[in-house]
Amino acid sequence: MKRFLIWWEERCRSVGPLRFIDIVLRGIGQVMFQDNPVSGLLFFIAVGWGSYAAGVPQVAIGGLLGVVVATVTARWLRVDHAALAAGLYGYNAYLVGIALPTFLANSLLLWVYLVLGAMLSVVATLAVANLMKASGVAALTAPFILVTWLLLLSAYAFSGIHGEALPASGQITPIPPEAANPLAIVDFAQGMLVSISQVFVKGNGVAALLILIGLAVGSLAAAGFALAAALISVVVAHALGAESQLISAGLVGFNPILTAIALGTVFYRPSPRVAVYALLATILTVMVQGAMVSALTPFGIPTLTASFVLVTWLFLLPGQKLD
Amino acid sequence: MKRFLIWWEERCRSVGPLRFIDIVLRGIGQVMFQDNPVSGLLFFIAVGWGSYAAGVPQVAIGGLLGVVVATVTARWLRVDHAALAAGLYGYNAYLVGIALPTFLANSLLLWVYLVLGAMLSVVATLAVANLMKASGVAALTAPFILVTWLLLLSAYAFSGIHGEALPASGQITPIPPEAANPLAIVDFAQGMLVSISQVFVKGNGVAALLILIGLAVGSLAAAGFALAAALISVVVAHALGAESQLISAGLVGFNPILTAIALGTVFYRPSPRVAVYALLATILTVMVQGAMVSALTPFGIPTLTASFVLVTWLFLLPGQKLD
Amino acid sequence: MKRFLIWWEERCRSVGPLRFIDIVLRGIGQVMFQDNPVSGLLFFIAVGWGSYAAGVPQVAIGGLLGVVVATVTARWLRVDHAALAAGLYGYNAYLVGIALPTFLANSLLLWVYLVLGAMLSVVATLAVANLMKASGVAALTAPFILVTWLLLLSAYAFSGIHGEALPASGQITPIPPEAANPLAIVDFAQGMLVSISQVFVKGNGVAALLILIGLAVGSLAAAGFALAAALISVVVAHALGAESQLISAGLVGFNPILTAIALGTVFYRPSPRVAVYALLATILTVMVQGAMVSALTPFGIPTLTASFVLVTWLFLLPGQKLD
Repeated sequence: MKRFLIWWEERCRSVGPLRFIDIVLRGIGQVMFQDNPVSGLLFFIAVGWGSYAAGVPQVAIGGLLGVVVATVTARWLRVDHAALAAGLYGYNAYLVGIALPTFLANSLLLWVYLVLGAMLSVVATLAVANLMKASGVAALTAPFILVTWLLLLSAYAFSGIHGEALPASGQITPIPPEAANPLAIVDFAQGMLVSISQVFVKGNGVAALLILIGLAVGSLAAAGFALAAALISVVVAHALGAESQLISAGLVGFNPILTAIALGTVFYRPSPRVAVYALLATILTVMVQGAMVSALTPFGIPTLTASFVLVTWLFLLPGQKLD
Repeated sequence: MKRFLIWWEERCRSVGPLRFIDIVLRGIGQVMFQDNPVSGLLFFIAVGWGSYAAGVPQVAIGGLLGVVVATVTARWLRVDHAALAAGLYGYNAYLVGIALPTFLANSLLLWVYLVLGAMLSVVATLAVANLMKASGVAALTAPFILVTWLLLLSAYAFSGIHGEALPASGQITPIPPEAANPLAIVDFAQGMLVSISQVFVKGNGVAALLILIGLAVGSLAAAGFALAAALISVVVAHALGAESQLISAGLVGFNPILTAIALGTVFYRPSPRVAVYALLATILTVMVQGAMVSALTPFGIPTLTASFVLVTWLFLLPGQKLD
Repeated sequence: MKRFLIWWEERCRSVGPLRFIDIVLRGIGQVMFQDNPVSGLLFFIAVGWGSYAAGVPQVAIGGLLGVVVATVTARWLRVDHAALAAGLYGYNAYLVGIALPTFLANSLLLWVYLVLGAMLSVVATLAVANLMKASGVAALTAPFILVTWLLLLSAYAFSGIHGEALPASGQITPIPPEAANPLAIVDFAQGMLVSISQVFVKGNGVAALLILIGLAVGSLAAAGFALAAALISVVVAHALGAESQLISAGLVGFNPILTAIALGTVFYRPSPRVAVYALLATILTVMVQGAMVSALTPFGIPTLTASFVLVTWLFLLPGQKLD
């Protein structure tokens, strides 16, 4: 793998369009913190498979278009070269590009929205980075969340945009106890696996395996933390009595997975103390994910990766030395 | 004009009360970024005309009282002299002063609210300025929004204050398609014009023309960007299928107009690249305005200039050099 | 008192467990800004009495468990020694520990929630402190509010946790005028007194007196400002037409009391100018408390001390010299 990456880097240096493709793939890889074009390619194939299987190919196309538009926009705005080359201006736009066609009906205006959203995601990335500069904390997927929430909320105000798959706006009510059922081992394993693919807004087992391989290619530790977090979050969610259907659909686990990878392998060097710290944050992300579902009920929009960002920021901001 | 301003500045320097009037007028001018007493006077007359025509003279009186109270409060708090003299402690209070009598019923307690709100707007201006200091971005009308939202929300909790013109709190629903109608040219032109006067929370054609003249007196570029943004926002809003009635009432266009003036003429030096940047922000402000209407539906309060502040902050925070 | 504290400090220095108890008591004292173990002990007894009288002893136990867990967590995270010794990592956890059993039904999972919440409160305290570092403003009870809101919101999503005493999520409506009644002197005095005990989420006259004594032990000025603020907030709330039942239950006054103590005695040196500044903030806290009740109505969670934190931050951020 290392040898391939060196060979690929040489190709990119000499051929302009290859460099562009490299940036796009790394942008996709950065959704799960992998500055690695092979990880990005595997994630891209996973999303492609998932959206093809679900009969919504526009999701995969939207993601690709998003990251391409963002890369062009970032160049026009003359952003820092190293950050651009590492894909740091692409991953938010990739997520915007797969989220909008997931929640909004296909139409010409959807694609206008998607292009404008991808451009805005670059501006928002720069803005959040500036805001967080003083506290030394990364933007994570906050730009994606901000842009997507704004565009989904605006869909309610414009008759040209239809929010087909949006949750209904309403009052918050406790979930009925019968919604929390004991599950068979099969459902349990499925909930774990599908949680991984829900990071890319799709529930699909094959996609999840491809994503796991992509993760392992970039970092074995990241793949390990992802699997462990998937297990922990499904167990914790069942123990708290979360809605079984949500757990099996992977909708409880994808945020804790991101928290675990970020805290356990990206922003701290792995160690027993760090593992305990990341474990606490992972469990809390399950609870905060529940809080986010409640908090967004009046607004009729999905939580996206908000609980991951909130908890990870809380656990990064202290800046305590853990090793 | 230049000669008059020099003569006026000399008068102010020698006569104390004139200096006070100068600060008040500049405060009103700063609502649209004009550090110019003549712009302020024209805006004041425009609001006076608009509120007289609508049978609510308390709006114009409230604005004046707000900026007077704020100026006295700012002096008591010993704020920076140059900023005070430029009207930077007045514009938020002026907007608080015209917004409260617009949304709340007239009563003795309304005026207590207004005076306390104007005082709080000065504290909030200092607070927001301190918070944004590190990122080098202006407070814009955030203090006005914060103070007005808090006071309007509190009206629901106190039987002594009646929120007559507040939108009802409720669930978010997509607008019905029939609410988005193709319009005659007359409606179209009216929507553009009235958008300009809605910056001062009033829909009135004559007021809009006075405001436009006031803008041109301060800066021809600002007047040009305002007109262009009014046109763009009405076109974009119709293309997205916004509610026709809102567009014609100028309620979609006033935020994009402020965004265009701020980004195109105040915080960046005009240039083709800056114009493209401001154009993108202006279009996005139309969409974010729709998002704000949705997001505030559960709370039963108006959006005020929140979409302008949010988008303009997002586009200022990157701090990229555009020329 | 001074002599006792010197004697106690000597004991703590030589006996490890006494130091731990000292930190726990100071943590409780810091809820009302008193870095004083005697104040903390009196507050602890007040809460004990209040929760025993109301038949919910788990509230007092929860508070103690919270501050103990937080102290251990803070040591594990190797926080600053001086801040830890002053109880600054304990007061948020103490409040989390009394709030969760107040609003959630007793169960095994409640105690899991409480322990995790206390741990998170330490992380959140470090995080908020880092965020506010640049602006030189204290975290106040923001960590308590954040943690408690998240955990209460999550209760709606998990069938294992029951939110018995939570306000219902719903639409915001103006209070009916008949809810605002003129009161007898007895109700009036009760509203004042009980406001003081509501700082610790309990309405109880005896507890209020114990808290007042605890305050006076730590700072006579603080006790004076607390009484004055209790009087002012009850008068202002009646004048605005707030719900009489809320006022008499002390639910309007506890936030203004904290604002008055913080601004009048802790963060500024007492002086006539400071007193005027604190008075303005105290009155505004009554209004903002009303706004918070409205703003949280869609979410079905209590305001806690949010209006105190918001107003006090607004009045601390300017950083103007008032003496």
